[in-house]
Amino acid sequence: MTADSRLNKYDRDLERVPANYMALSPVTFLTRSALVYPQQTAWIHGPQRASYAEFYARCRRLASALQARGVGLGDTVAVMAPNVPAMLEAHYGVPMTGGVINALNIRLDAAAIAFILDHGEAKVLITDREFSPTIREALKLAQVKPLVIDIDDPLYSGPGERLSEIEYEEFIAGGDPEFPVTLPSDEWQAIALNYTSGTTGDPKGVVFHHRGAYLNSLGNTVVWHMPQHARYMWTLPMFHCNGWCFTWALSVVAGTHICLRKTTAEAAYAAIAEHDVTHFCGAPIVMNMLANAPAELRRAGGRVIEVMTAGSAPPAAVIAAMEAQGFHVTHAYGLTETYGPAVTCAWHDEWDALPLAERATLKARQGVPYPVLEGLMVADPETLVPCPADGQTLGEVFMRGNITMKGYLKNPRSTQASFAGGWFHSGDLAVMHPNGYIELKDRSKDIIISGGENISTIEVEGVLYQHTAVLEAAVVARPDETWGETPCAFVTLKEGCQASERELIEFCRQNLAHFKAPKTVVFGPLPKTSTGKILKYALREKAAAL
Amino acid sequence: MTADSRLNKYDRDLERVPANYMALSPVTFLTRSALVYPQQTAWIHGPQRASYAEFYARCRRLASALQARGVGLGDTVAVMAPNVPAMLEAHYGVPMTGGVINALNIRLDAAAIAFILDHGEAKVLITDREFSPTIREALKLAQVKPLVIDIDDPLYSGPGERLSEIEYEEFIAGGDPEFPVTLPSDEWQAIALNYTSGTTGDPKGVVFHHRGAYLNSLGNTVVWHMPQHARYMWTLPMFHCNGWCFTWALSVVAGTHICLRKTTAEAAYAAIAEHDVTHFCGAPIVMNMLANAPAELRRAGGRVIEVMTAGSAPPAAVIAAMEAQGFHVTHAYGLTETYGPAVTCAWHDEWDALPLAERATLKARQGVPYPVLEGLMVADPETLVPCPADGQTLGEVFMRGNITMKGYLKNPRSTQASFAGGWFHSGDLAVMHPNGYIELKDRSKDIIISGGENISTIEVEGVLYQHTAVLEAAVVARPDETWGETPCAFVTLKEGCQASERELIEFCRQNLAHFKAPKTVVFGPLPKTSTGKILKYALREKAAAL
Repeated sequence: MTADSRLNKYDRDLERVPANYMALSPVTFLTRSALVYPQQTAWIHGPQRASYAEFYARCRRLASALQARGVGLGDTVAVMAPNVPAMLEAHYGVPMTGGVINALNIRLDAAAIAFILDHGEAKVLITDREFSPTIREALKLAQVKPLVIDIDDPLYSGPGERLSEIEYEEFIAGGDPEFPVTLPSDEWQAIALNYTSGTTGDPKGVVFHHRGAYLNSLGNTVVWHMPQHARYMWTLPMFHCNGWCFTWALSVVAGTHICLRKTTAEAAYAAIAEHDVTHFCGAPIVMNMLANAPAELRRAGGRVIEVMTAGSAPPAAVIAAMEAQGFHVTHAYGLTETYGPAVTCAWHDEWDALPLAERATLKARQGVPYPVLEGLMVADPETLVPCPADGQTLGEVFMRGNITMKGYLKNPRSTQASFAGGWFHSGDLAVMHPNGYIELKDRSKDIIISGGENISTIEVEGVLYQHTAVLEAAVVARPDETWGETPCAFVTLKEGCQASERELIEFCRQNLAHFKAPKTVVFGPLPKTSTGKILKYALREKAAAL
Repeated sequence: MTADSRLNKYDRDLERVPANYMALSPVTFLTRSALVYPQQTAWIHGPQRASYAEFYARCRRLASALQARGVGLGDTVAVMAPNVPAMLEAHYGVPMTGGVINALNIRLDAAAIAFILDHGEAKVLITDREFSPTIREALKLAQVKPLVIDIDDPLYSGPGERLSEIEYEEFIAGGDPEFPVTLPSDEWQAIALNYTSGTTGDPKGVVFHHRGAYLNSLGNTVVWHMPQHARYMWTLPMFHCNGWCFTWALSVVAGTHICLRKTTAEAAYAAIAEHDVTHFCGAPIVMNMLANAPAELRRAGGRVIEVMTAGSAPPAAVIAAMEAQGFHVTHAYGLTETYGPAVTCAWHDEWDALPLAERATLKARQGVPYPVLEGLMVADPETLVPCPADGQTLGEVFMRGNITMKGYLKNPRSTQASFAGGWFHSGDLAVMHPNGYIELKDRSKDIIISGGENISTIEVEGVLYQHTAVLEAAVVARPDETWGETPCAFVTLKEGCQASERELIEFCRQNLAHFKAPKTVVFGPLPKTSTGKILKYALREKAAAL
């Protein structure tokens, strides 16, 4: 046995050559679907349709037009748009030039957008008319002067002026539908740039590469057993980790993207009925919205629709409400740094027979790695020694493998820190159950330490969600002279429902160790990020000021 | 835009590190299935069963025991066995040590085996008792002196003495079930060595790497939409391209391997009934065997079973007979050099409505690339200029991408020749239809040139198969003074059926251009390779001697 594999007979005269090695890129999935299923519907946007042949041609036109404007290897093309075809097409057209797509969070303010445009060195900005007030302001603040292209979506009739002479449809009309697609020479080449929502400090630019996007696309397909021609509804923003890579994964199965400009219960149920939706993803807020929609909107069952959710554990009541409507919920977990979901609560057939409460308990676990994620562990944040798989010992979640990011753009310190010890540090706290399934307990910074005891805010929230009057709940630490910290709950009640602070605290005490029950309950709407993540730092500030 | 991507902001301080890069290896799929579904049945062999936890532990024991005997990076472990668990376990246990599995064709003679053992430099030979007469002889002829391990399968009670002191079960019992699995540091590392059947000259050793085996496992899963816990019956020999990579692909979905020592109609139908088989693969000979099995054995329909076949186009009559029994046939195509099937006749839903004959015509096409095969073309063998996609122009089939082999072991000349021009030269002749689907017409060397006209032997065989009395047919060139060559048919009739030479020639003339009809028909059994491929060179010799 030799350490130098070069000396091995299996390595002599057996080099990589063009015939047996190509860089992995998700763009190849689109090329194939356009070849095999050219007539298959690729996207639906209101009354508009594009077949795979048309979709592919439009992406190539976009690439050609961008290249003509000087976009090439390593250039950033930012896109500010809801779930419209132009956003989808940018996921292929930009990488086809060697460029990098930077999908912007449409709920950010001008200052944040300006920071991102500058930091990412945007060369082109494609922007939907709806957001031109913010973008106009951002462009004034930014140092970079990107070429601006307006999306003037016929489905949008609201306010917002065009910002440039160039409209998206006209722009791509000038491009070559036979544009020779540039595949990366190295699969490590960047394909996307996604800024973390940055609850504190400047946002960090997470860089994805072609290899990871390719592998996670296959991972999504396999984990979800996606059938050929799945009909996928865009309730999840495409700017959220490139739609958890489903922007690319759909091309593996020549599926249909059903675009929604706005995710409302009305729009979602209408699309489900009209387009026979088979799959969609969504943060808990989407699940909540559908589960608690007015009765006249809801489904009465029928074909089972697969729903993937991530962000926080789906409470039993929501799972029950979803199942009653024929939705089958898969729970997944990941971060922007892991291309979106990289961990999934892989189901066991025998669990189907369990009562709802037990099924919900099992489903609330984040689970096990995707087949394309090589390493997942719960370990000591300092020593990286794995915690016992006892369902009790709290540790940090670590991942490693081919679907963790390339790193943070122009931020070597953060990159190195997040990869220290050979693992990606998620910052999330979890336990590992004896069956190897992880269960998130909190973000490191969200844990409450009360009288020396750790309190998982997720656990307290889970109990609050079981109360019939509670629509949403978030628990944070409130500084306390005696205990150090105490749990403080922020709660939104369901329409027409009532509950007092005292009642909710009592309910928690009945279902939790007493020291874990909130000492304070505040009623009202919860502040959220655009992706439905509750802004706990804002609540912590509120709690501290009480 | 710069040619050197090193200068790019997306490449600065964003290197591969252990947290974000690991070599792709199909061994990781087994690790994951053992973690997620430890109780799930991994293999069934007669009355024996192993769960995924047990299967994984057995593979690790094998790796540990092999390592203790000095097996490491780049060492070859040959296996001579039918579809038994030991063969399956070698597909994981050997690569876990850094070694390379060389699955031997059990129908080869001692001289061929000796050549392969020497050429592959086998360090260990694991061999089933059934084949010890051949192996004893081969070991006398071979220069290498591998460590010999006998498989003494309790399901085998026939003749054949043990050749060594070491029995497989005892050998692995001494290994460590917690063996630290060695994953490759480079995914280009070899994982398997498969010798082509070599109809002329010495066999060539095709080398697979971990990257290709990983990707083709995902490709199989996606192409066939394999569900979680598929129950896969081993009618295809595992020594044939590592069972078309299904030895590894099943681990992606934690499926169950149903082993068959011998593929007979009785054994296959018994396994289907007993184990609720969902999928199996087989050369045309397996399809034929099942389609023409005695009526009392056949299925009467029921749950649809997915069947993948490759080797030659399934004739309409066989498809009809299979469908009547509830088998759904997928046609695929590939070579040892492409990890087995790399091309598949991807189905279009609207084709379901067509009459059987049209469906069979479409299904007989080899089709389009797997999602993990980047390039497929039909082109001029000399210039590599693609042929028009007109369904008429004959050219050679070329592939390229990540599931073409690493190359031929110790054979740089053949490797370079087969990869010349940046594409793998398949040696198969085909047309491309306007819809991009390829249809094989012949092996380059099988084409008949009669009076200056090309005759596709596959086309003539296809017509012969339509005759109700024909079980099997093979057409080759027979030297002819006037025409240069004429088609000569070798035919096996179905049991109890009769047909004359004159009748079959007349039948062909009615269904083909007259010059394509055979001038000679010879009745009798056809000589075949172990994988059911008809040995055309033997028939050509026969035809020349007529």
